Amino acid sequence: MGLLQDLQWRYATKRMTGAKVPQDKLDTILEAIRLSPSSMGFQPYTVLVVEDLETRKKIQAVAFQQPQIVEASHLLIFAAWDPLSTQQVQAYMQQIADERGVSMDTLAGFAGSINNMISNGTPEENFHWAAKQTYIGLGIGLAAAASEKVDATPMEGFMPAALDELLGLKEKGLRSVSLMTLGFRDTANDPLANAKKVRRPKENFFQEIVLS
Amino acid sequence: MGLLQDLQWRYATKRMTGAKVPQDKLDTILEAIRLSPSSMGFQPYTVLVVEDLETRKKIQAVAFQQPQIVEASHLLIFAAWDPLSTQQVQAYMQQIADERGVSMDTLAGFAGSINNMISNGTPEENFHWAAKQTYIGLGIGLAAAASEKVDATPMEGFMPAALDELLGLKEKGLRSVSLMTLGFRDTANDPLANAKKVRRPKENFFQEIVLS
Repeated sequence: MGLLQDLQWRYATKRMTGAKVPQDKLDTILEAIRLSPSSMGFQPYTVLVVEDLETRKKIQAVAFQQPQIVEASHLLIFAAWDPLSTQQVQAYMQQIADERGVSMDTLAGFAGSINNMISNGTPEENFHWAAKQTYIGLGIGLAAAASEKVDATPMEGFMPAALDELLGLKEKGLRSVSLMTLGFRDTANDPLANAKKVRRPKENFFQEIVLS
Repeated sequence: MGLLQDLQWRYATKRMTGAKVPQDKLDTILEAIRLSPSSMGFQPYTVLVVEDLETRKKIQAVAFQQPQIVEASHLLIFAAWDPLSTQQVQAYMQQIADERGVSMDTLAGFAGSINNMISNGTPEENFHWAAKQTYIGLGIGLAAAASEKVDATPMEGFMPAALDELLGLKEKGLRSVSLMTLGFRDTANDPLANAKKVRRPKENFFQEIVLS
């Protein structure tokens, strides 16, 4: 199966060659992220796309100077919506109504359930919930990159508050969660390029459950 | 590209036929989840696999009686490790040492960085971190299911504390995060089976960033 081979091929690439990812491959990876599911389909996040090298150098300074940020072709930033709001819910309902040709009245219960969740959660709980949704997109984006034979590095190793400040994300209602570089592995300089992939054996990672 | 078509084909299936997922397809989906990346490769979670129908009926009772839980072929439960511990880190290091043929000494810095993260986080922060990693596996598992033309439903709609109690997860050092049913769509009874997929347009979902 292709996906399993792709997942075996990929690894968290620490050194990249600087080569550009072709536009069609980039478009495919971004589209896979956009199509990723999320809780209630709400997609409570925005993906920032950074190609400009000077901008990536500034971001590298708040990400422990990791070389792949500037050696990549593109850097993606997964940024959760913070805070969540009834206006966002309203816009989502309007989009559903428009695209599915249903009335807003029929969506009132659905809107209410999302609004209840938001009002019952603390701002920090809501952020965690939105942040978790970004990881679905991150995972599917990594799978898509591998299927395009584009290297990708998921990264939590950066200073979120400093990055938010640098990019003015708070003013945009966004809060950075993770980064993903896209590019091509530099096998000569990346010590992990040929390292064996380490995963827990399936006997340990899975547990079958039967209640008596 | 196959993955984009698969992502267009899939949807959060609310009604399933009860048909069994063939073992080879199930194995492929589980293997994709097992191969999923996680922060520092730590895989701080366990995936519970429930096929037994009587067990799924009991789980359905703490998940708002959603029909797909019993109409599915299998139910997966993504359960984060809670609490995180130095023993888990030690076991991970031992596995890396064994599989890559390196000494534990060379891994001391890596172990220290994970241990520092754990000791610097509150138990709740550590849980959120571990829970986020499960969403990478959830996302890749959903993509894998779609590529096998198996329907899958990601679910946050259940009572985690009640499920943990039912399955004795706390005693196992686990805490439930999300569910995923695997089966086949019942198009005659699922109103969402033919609904148009709604996703924010790319002009809205992505933002290009250049700092001046």
